[in-house]
Amino acid sequence: MGDDKLPKQSENFSEWYNQLIQKAELADYAPVRGCMVVRPYGWALWENIQKELDSRFKASGHVNAAFPLFIPMSFLEKEKEHVEGFAPELAVVTIGGGQTLEEPLVVRPTSETIIGYMYSKWIKSYRDLPILINQWANVVRWEMRTRLFLRTLEFYWQEGHTAHETAQEAEEETLKILDLYTDFAINEAAVPVIPGIKSDAEKFAGAKQSYTIEAMMADTKALQSGTSHNLGQNFAKAFEIEYLDRNNEQQFAWTTSWGLSTRFIGAIIMTHGDDQGLIMPPRLAPIQIVIVPIFRSEDEQGIVMTCVNEIVKLLSKFRVKVDDRENLTPGFKFNDWELRGVPLRIEIGPRDVANNTVVAAQRDIPGKAGKLFLIIDNLDMQIEKILNDIHNRMLDKATKFRDSHIFEPKDYEDFKQIVSNGWAYAYWCGDPACEDAIKQETKATTRCRDLHQQKSDGKCIYCEKPAHYKTYFARAY
Amino acid sequence: MGDDKLPKQSENFSEWYNQLIQKAELADYAPVRGCMVVRPYGWALWENIQKELDSRFKASGHVNAAFPLFIPMSFLEKEKEHVEGFAPELAVVTIGGGQTLEEPLVVRPTSETIIGYMYSKWIKSYRDLPILINQWANVVRWEMRTRLFLRTLEFYWQEGHTAHETAQEAEEETLKILDLYTDFAINEAAVPVIPGIKSDAEKFAGAKQSYTIEAMMADTKALQSGTSHNLGQNFAKAFEIEYLDRNNEQQFAWTTSWGLSTRFIGAIIMTHGDDQGLIMPPRLAPIQIVIVPIFRSEDEQGIVMTCVNEIVKLLSKFRVKVDDRENLTPGFKFNDWELRGVPLRIEIGPRDVANNTVVAAQRDIPGKAGKLFLIIDNLDMQIEKILNDIHNRMLDKATKFRDSHIFEPKDYEDFKQIVSNGWAYAYWCGDPACEDAIKQETKATTRCRDLHQQKSDGKCIYCEKPAHYKTYFARAY
Repeated sequence: MGDDKLPKQSENFSEWYNQLIQKAELADYAPVRGCMVVRPYGWALWENIQKELDSRFKASGHVNAAFPLFIPMSFLEKEKEHVEGFAPELAVVTIGGGQTLEEPLVVRPTSETIIGYMYSKWIKSYRDLPILINQWANVVRWEMRTRLFLRTLEFYWQEGHTAHETAQEAEEETLKILDLYTDFAINEAAVPVIPGIKSDAEKFAGAKQSYTIEAMMADTKALQSGTSHNLGQNFAKAFEIEYLDRNNEQQFAWTTSWGLSTRFIGAIIMTHGDDQGLIMPPRLAPIQIVIVPIFRSEDEQGIVMTCVNEIVKLLSKFRVKVDDRENLTPGFKFNDWELRGVPLRIEIGPRDVANNTVVAAQRDIPGKAGKLFLIIDNLDMQIEKILNDIHNRMLDKATKFRDSHIFEPKDYEDFKQIVSNGWAYAYWCGDPACEDAIKQETKATTRCRDLHQQKSDGKCIYCEKPAHYKTYFARAY
Repeated sequence: MGDDKLPKQSENFSEWYNQLIQKAELADYAPVRGCMVVRPYGWALWENIQKELDSRFKASGHVNAAFPLFIPMSFLEKEKEHVEGFAPELAVVTIGGGQTLEEPLVVRPTSETIIGYMYSKWIKSYRDLPILINQWANVVRWEMRTRLFLRTLEFYWQEGHTAHETAQEAEEETLKILDLYTDFAINEAAVPVIPGIKSDAEKFAGAKQSYTIEAMMADTKALQSGTSHNLGQNFAKAFEIEYLDRNNEQQFAWTTSWGLSTRFIGAIIMTHGDDQGLIMPPRLAPIQIVIVPIFRSEDEQGIVMTCVNEIVKLLSKFRVKVDDRENLTPGFKFNDWELRGVPLRIEIGPRDVANNTVVAAQRDIPGKAGKLFLIIDNLDMQIEKILNDIHNRMLDKATKFRDSHIFEPKDYEDFKQIVSNGWAYAYWCGDPACEDAIKQETKATTRCRDLHQQKSDGKCIYCEKPAHYKTYFARAY
């Protein structure tokens, strides 16, 4: 912690973000440039994210496995767009066991190639399909400008890799996962993402089509928070993933891949945080409830701690921490847990014990307005409702913030104004030249075309030629 | 699977092991020499191992975190014994983002050095101690002779790293974890390990003292199945992990590290397996119960499947799979699940439905002797007991096998005979020269001195000088 104060979010969003991560002990800088150490409080958040995603993957028929960290350089070269996309970002092992390697090994930036190779071994007939495998893994991309959680040399993610009999099944899988990510983001993290389709320029290197969930951060910048790719037959052809179909003919399989990473922690921080620090969404919070006992004498301590211990038992289904640190004032503790974003704080003093009540402070509503006086009986049921209310308010607030910062521009001048502090929802003709010009002139990139958008008639915001779909444009992380 | 038969364990243990892993789809060879792909069935076993260990770590106050994959080469050189031990096994990244790196990065073979560096940043005072952190990670050691699960270039493990105020606390932690590993091995995996102390020659590079759990495989070879190290102040001094003690004086911390890896899957395979294939310990088995429906007509199918679905609901607290694959005979399925080691198989045909019974086959008792006829009512409670019985029988069988292959040699000639097909429990003077001579002459290494062994008087099995402790000697993986 230290005594130095957190910069205000409104005054320096970037410094607020960097310092908050360190002060709240979510992560720290590693001694290797661009790498991070995810500290226990940050990792506990990631474990809760993993648990929620993993149970959804398994419920929809996916299984986990583990593929190697090292990929032969020649594998990446088999898919042209893929190697072009990743070549500049590779970390390469050239020495093993003291010897120079004959073929250098790439530290995986993603695993389509090595998994494609294994699938070509495992898949013989349509009976072997679909294959629905996910892995939880670390990957490495040699980024030049790094930011904790948002862009680090090494990061943690899950990557799903599936293979199917038909193009339609692969497309259904891709969209099913996009839907799963959307559900997770909204209902667990209270992050109101917009699911949509990436432009060709923004899609995954080697994909036929990429889908994304896009979130608006509190500085109005966009954060791509998870992606799902329909790879068509690109990787199947590169790695000869073939199967004997129901008519006894050889076919290439149709594959997908999809991932959500520790970057999502950045989305949580920047969607919900305020000047006091983090605000953890209750369903993912490493600590859902912190209890601060308050007493002035040993007698009072005995009375208060007896009550605290009973309450801890009563709240056994929640993630609870009792802050019994000595030599720290209650005021210091309150600030500390606010900084760390614990959704609900319970204060218990001797008078509360006598009254059979506790004071509960809701993190998302600062000051007195957020305080509740609760009777201890049925505290667990009351708190279940309170945590749900906090989740709903956080989602509601973030959704309102997002919607109040999305505008449909009248013209390109208006567009430029909008993307300086919000997202523009504008017709785009689909020409990469317009997309690129907009990016050069305004720093705004295409984020996505929202799913299920009906075709309509308009003019491209840049070239003014006929356009049929609106796209979200924003500056992005 | 394929049609080719599994070699007999008794005829070719090594081929039995290699082929079983592939046929049971636990793992496969990766296209990079010495690396493995852990397939979904193998990874599900590892996930169950993780869950049991992780809950024990957390219950004893440990938390998880994540430290970087890459370690600057200079870090390893800070602890002399450590770098000597690991230097020959390193994979080195020399190129990043297309540029040759100024300082090469080592892909972590273990993380004492980088974690030591971070601890020196985080620890200021005795109030910051103890630190009790674990991480689940992949590590790389450039091994020349590799074996699936037992010794691969990349493997998966957990590595705990703790820092303490006193030497005593560090020793207590080291032993607490050894005890935790022992409890896990015996009570979850039914692997009767012997906890003990490693010799100096066999200890971890940089440790003050290493403890181990040693298991006997079905070919009587030993497998080191988990280790816990008291690092003394070696790493604290190398990385300046210092703290202000209760008397306001600077002290070096005392650290420990401990790990259990995917090697443990090898221990499970080679402790319990038989000529038919794997035998999974029920508490870790990815599939605890497989149900094979048996029918000859659509009418029968309807009747049987209705009953199967009810039983699946009744058994919801177990990990159950229904094998409803078409075009495969029940006999084929029986063999298939025996190969994969599912502890309990339930067969249900129309006559069983009519009688309100099922046939249950216990994997650990082959043939008719292992069959049970169970009434469907209360099937869940009956099966709970049956799975516990299977666990107990497996543990009992492995313990008896182990104990009947450990002998106390009369003399060195007897010793040589014993270690050709068992373990010798023999006095050793403690001189590394005797240990090394024995290794050269018999291939047997010191496995451990069992914990709590009382000092006694004897003669070294090799040099015949006075010796006070007996040590287990065996050929080992």
